[in-house]
Amino acid sequence: MRVSVLGAAGYTGGELLRLLLGHPEVEIVQAVSESFAGKPVWKAHPNLRRVTDLLFSAPSELIPGDALFLALPHGTSMGSMEMYASKARLVVDLSADFRLKAPDAYARYYDVQHPAPGQLSTFVYGLPELHREELRRATRVAVAGCTASASILALAPLVRSGRLGSGQIVVDAKTGSSAGGRRETRASHHPERSGAMRLYSPTGHRHTAEIEQELGLGGRVHLTIHAVEAVRGILATAHAFVPDGLERKVLWTIYREAYGHEPFVRIVEDPGGIHRYPDPKILAGSNFCDVGFAAEDGHVVAVAALDNLMKGAAGNALQCFNLMAGFDERAGLAFPGLHPA
Amino acid sequence: MRVSVLGAAGYTGGELLRLLLGHPEVEIVQAVSESFAGKPVWKAHPNLRRVTDLLFSAPSELIPGDALFLALPHGTSMGSMEMYASKARLVVDLSADFRLKAPDAYARYYDVQHPAPGQLSTFVYGLPELHREELRRATRVAVAGCTASASILALAPLVRSGRLGSGQIVVDAKTGSSAGGRRETRASHHPERSGAMRLYSPTGHRHTAEIEQELGLGGRVHLTIHAVEAVRGILATAHAFVPDGLERKVLWTIYREAYGHEPFVRIVEDPGGIHRYPDPKILAGSNFCDVGFAAEDGHVVAVAALDNLMKGAAGNALQCFNLMAGFDERAGLAFPGLHPA
Amino acid sequence: MRVSVLGAAGYTGGELLRLLLGHPEVEIVQAVSESFAGKPVWKAHPNLRRVTDLLFSAPSELIPGDALFLALPHGTSMGSMEMYASKARLVVDLSADFRLKAPDAYARYYDVQHPAPGQLSTFVYGLPELHREELRRATRVAVAGCTASASILALAPLVRSGRLGSGQIVVDAKTGSSAGGRRETRASHHPERSGAMRLYSPTGHRHTAEIEQELGLGGRVHLTIHAVEAVRGILATAHAFVPDGLERKVLWTIYREAYGHEPFVRIVEDPGGIHRYPDPKILAGSNFCDVGFAAEDGHVVAVAALDNLMKGAAGNALQCFNLMAGFDERAGLAFPGLHPA
Amino acid sequence: MRVSVLGAAGYTGGELLRLLLGHPEVEIVQAVSESFAGKPVWKAHPNLRRVTDLLFSAPSELIPGDALFLALPHGTSMGSMEMYASKARLVVDLSADFRLKAPDAYARYYDVQHPAPGQLSTFVYGLPELHREELRRATRVAVAGCTASASILALAPLVRSGRLGSGQIVVDAKTGSSAGGRRETRASHHPERSGAMRLYSPTGHRHTAEIEQELGLGGRVHLTIHAVEAVRGILATAHAFVPDGLERKVLWTIYREAYGHEPFVRIVEDPGGIHRYPDPKILAGSNFCDVGFAAEDGHVVAVAALDNLMKGAAGNALQCFNLMAGFDERAGLAFPGLHPA
Repeated sequence: MRVSVLGAAGYTGGELLRLLLGHPEVEIVQAVSESFAGKPVWKAHPNLRRVTDLLFSAPSELIPGDALFLALPHGTSMGSMEMYASKARLVVDLSADFRLKAPDAYARYYDVQHPAPGQLSTFVYGLPELHREELRRATRVAVAGCTASASILALAPLVRSGRLGSGQIVVDAKTGSSAGGRRETRASHHPERSGAMRLYSPTGHRHTAEIEQELGLGGRVHLTIHAVEAVRGILATAHAFVPDGLERKVLWTIYREAYGHEPFVRIVEDPGGIHRYPDPKILAGSNFCDVGFAAEDGHVVAVAALDNLMKGAAGNALQCFNLMAGFDERAGLAFPGLHPA
Repeated sequence: MRVSVLGAAGYTGGELLRLLLGHPEVEIVQAVSESFAGKPVWKAHPNLRRVTDLLFSAPSELIPGDALFLALPHGTSMGSMEMYASKARLVVDLSADFRLKAPDAYARYYDVQHPAPGQLSTFVYGLPELHREELRRATRVAVAGCTASASILALAPLVRSGRLGSGQIVVDAKTGSSAGGRRETRASHHPERSGAMRLYSPTGHRHTAEIEQELGLGGRVHLTIHAVEAVRGILATAHAFVPDGLERKVLWTIYREAYGHEPFVRIVEDPGGIHRYPDPKILAGSNFCDVGFAAEDGHVVAVAALDNLMKGAAGNALQCFNLMAGFDERAGLAFPGLHPA
Repeated sequence: MRVSVLGAAGYTGGELLRLLLGHPEVEIVQAVSESFAGKPVWKAHPNLRRVTDLLFSAPSELIPGDALFLALPHGTSMGSMEMYASKARLVVDLSADFRLKAPDAYARYYDVQHPAPGQLSTFVYGLPELHREELRRATRVAVAGCTASASILALAPLVRSGRLGSGQIVVDAKTGSSAGGRRETRASHHPERSGAMRLYSPTGHRHTAEIEQELGLGGRVHLTIHAVEAVRGILATAHAFVPDGLERKVLWTIYREAYGHEPFVRIVEDPGGIHRYPDPKILAGSNFCDVGFAAEDGHVVAVAALDNLMKGAAGNALQCFNLMAGFDERAGLAFPGLHPA
Repeated sequence: MRVSVLGAAGYTGGELLRLLLGHPEVEIVQAVSESFAGKPVWKAHPNLRRVTDLLFSAPSELIPGDALFLALPHGTSMGSMEMYASKARLVVDLSADFRLKAPDAYARYYDVQHPAPGQLSTFVYGLPELHREELRRATRVAVAGCTASASILALAPLVRSGRLGSGQIVVDAKTGSSAGGRRETRASHHPERSGAMRLYSPTGHRHTAEIEQELGLGGRVHLTIHAVEAVRGILATAHAFVPDGLERKVLWTIYREAYGHEPFVRIVEDPGGIHRYPDPKILAGSNFCDVGFAAEDGHVVAVAALDNLMKGAAGNALQCFNLMAGFDERAGLAFPGLHPA
């Protein structure tokens, strides 16, 4: 299958290229980047030196193929989807532009009037654990946001179990620096970012909309995001309250039923050891999302860890693509992560 | 004033020594350590090389003085307070052994039958922002725990404002590695700890008892602690819900009234900039606790940052001691922290 | 081919397991560990959770196979090689026990009288770039040390070019914390190790012997090793002097001739960009060794970066094994590393 | 004494302000910054929140005082020294503009024709360990460069001992990210800089000129600089060869004679312990330069660690200023650094 990547010089684009180069059924047609056009791929992605001779192409040179991965800034594909769709049968959009079903959510969370509200329903939300069958039939996918993915995967089994009642839910997330992308800013300046442990977004983060939409929790999710020291990785810690309590055994059943057969979700909740709960540290480069849980006195803590560029972006996008294309869902995603890392 | 430090070879003990060496009214009589007895202080604390010629003394050689700082493992002073109190008029205990007022809380949280329950009431809880006047009259102080201090300072103004209602409160805390102390463990092994972002204690942490006691929130505080990458620093993010909402302006009033005159609490809540919320990164070595807040749709986020060895232990202990001894509360605590750090 | 790993619970052992699990021609028979016997492999290597169901075996249960990887502490295989060799036709020893050809070098550098000096000549030094053809015929291989590998690969082209003259050579190496292995020590305690930048071994390091042996530089190599902040990675910076100078163009020719066809050595020396010289940061998990160089006024700087657990240990061991077994040299070693990392 | 700081919003400027605020004999008249003019100092230096109410002044508003600290980019003061000198009797320039004595060195190393070569001799090179008496009489000081300071302090005793002979000297330095200053670049972008271990400058670095000038080693010093993970700190490892060897005892004598009475140089060379050699990790915020050494077979390793913003810039500048102004050389410089850090 002939695929191209747009926004290929960014961090997510680089991960897409790395994964697609190792995919047994895929040929990369173009790695498209405005700023790197004409240069070898390894100029932007030094890990791919000697791995590929591909050069970046300019956006104006985009040629048709079977599938397009769009790793573009938010707001870019929103108004151009007809054009992209004319270039390939399958479109995998990694931006937020088609994730939300309600047009007015774009006004509220992205401060923009969506230019193509009628197309929102043509996209499947790209999270296989929630939409596997739809993804198999989809031609357009809006890949889930990184913090949203972690939050949703932490909470989905609980929500579906019906045990959460009607209370408010707090998701306290921690994120590494690569989530901010390739562009340097004051916040990403190493002397300022190294060892930081700070509120990045206390309230009202955009990913709230995705979480509420996918879990049917309108108005009940409160997402707070912190910047902590790591390059890759998100840890989403969800706090909820259950009037009648929930025992560990019950939680195990709920999570095992939800994820026991998922190829990329692992339940991590051991009685001891330093790895008894999820830690994105060992997930760099891996498509796993590790999920754990604990509860006491009605306070339920559900936690999910993932690599924001993998299960939080490029890896998850490839998993969706594999479903769309009818390939083995795990193709190209075998790397398990490193320990120590 | 002649003071001694017990447990002087540990991380907190080392910070006490550093601070006391710079204190204008204090002479250090003994730095007591079982394992380092006879060795120069800089063998344990390399930053004090050439700063002091003091040698460690053995516990058996303890001589009387005016004040004792006990930086000993939890459970050590519990059964020996009579002996310590016979050596000095002022006792500053940095362990948890006399922090809780209710003897049965020791059974629940520390799994121990307190051997001297009658003495619990002779101790003042060592947090000047809550107990300044009592500290001025105290001869025995149980210095607040590090995560408890951050949590309490984040929440106290809200609680006192009476606006929080009766709901549950989640404190999602993040902590650096020095909070684990000097002893090497699997969890503190650098390849395992570096860049970690993981649940250390999802529920039931011991500091919950202190927070509930000091804020009068019995049964309502749910403390979750994460280990993240940093040597020093705790960030406590408290989440609460207020039925009727709370505007930023009201929050400002609440916090300014609580902390406007505090020498070591700064309100950090700016409209922009990367330092618009508290970050323990810039507090290493400083006795400041930086406190911030945000709110939306009834979700209140209150956050406090501190250096776990300073305002979370040795610095706060010295601040308490200054009050007990009648010194300037800020004596020996002028270092403001570094930027960048 | 049926292979077993001894010392399988260590960091290098874990990487061997990870690589062998992904190797198309290999079946893992046993993962042997004294301390983890009976436990699942993921208890020691959390990244392999759900990747393998293998349990650790006790050393006493070792069964015969086609190949043995020995990832044991130095000094362990020295006296037991007959036994190991009786269990498998191919033995890949990752310790230092059979790397040196001269028995008295063990006395000098390892302070030990080698118990089986007659066997030293039966081992090939495990570095394919120097001994590829011997490795194809070998049944016993002593895999190169991590710092030695980086130093040798940095210098070999220069030495072979005959341009270095007879002067002294300084190798100033920097290493991450995983090189110290799994066992916690004061030096590996996170609060002490995080952000360190210190001399670990100023002179006389054991790897000096390997470097001098392999490059024919007896008495001329001076190796200094520093501990810096990273979990994985070694950067060896070699400094030499050339009486008549060496131009960049000449250096390029020398290195291209040496490494142009090597599957796992990349020349990294670009005129600009932040990745213009090797950096182990982007090599975590990869078997690449990146080599670069510069020169001015007769001062030649040759630098090599690698992942100490991969091209510095397990990856290089697998590369050697592939040659010994007649497999594609690159089998199981396709992962290119991550960016950013 | 009334002093002002120019370039006060930069990292070095911020450290100067922090130190001067704690100096018993100094009043800060102005903190001058073009970009932050009119804003409070804590907007640029969050650690100084509540510590000072000072606002930044515009350069055009510069008023006369007793002393000026110039923390400006290289090339700024070169052509304006007359103007600055008209504003204050004492000028402490932290840039490179007046460090070198030979005008043509500016052409070679800075690619600039120095506009005021006649003024070069009016400056004393700002390193008290080499020029204390001149500094006491100086009105203009060119503060030593950070890497140069570390390199010079490591090597000076050896050079003066006359034991080094005539050979080449390699200085292999490692530096943290704050040495690059406040401006964000691709190289300082956290995902790229975190955990890096790479050549920053293999040959020909500008500080070579200072080292050769101050040590009288024209053409013999070869400086290589690496970027490693740390915010603050430089470790300079100097490698030299001594035909006849040098025993540890002799080295101790050489270094003790050189530095035994220096207030800010500590000799760190212990037989054991993890802090047996210098490490900038424990020097953040401190004005100490820790110096150590080792030797074997004629290879001498001399190593110096310092905080690049303190003994490598602002701290050293203040030490020089104290000498110029007749104050206690240690005034304002008492902070010993933190452990752990």
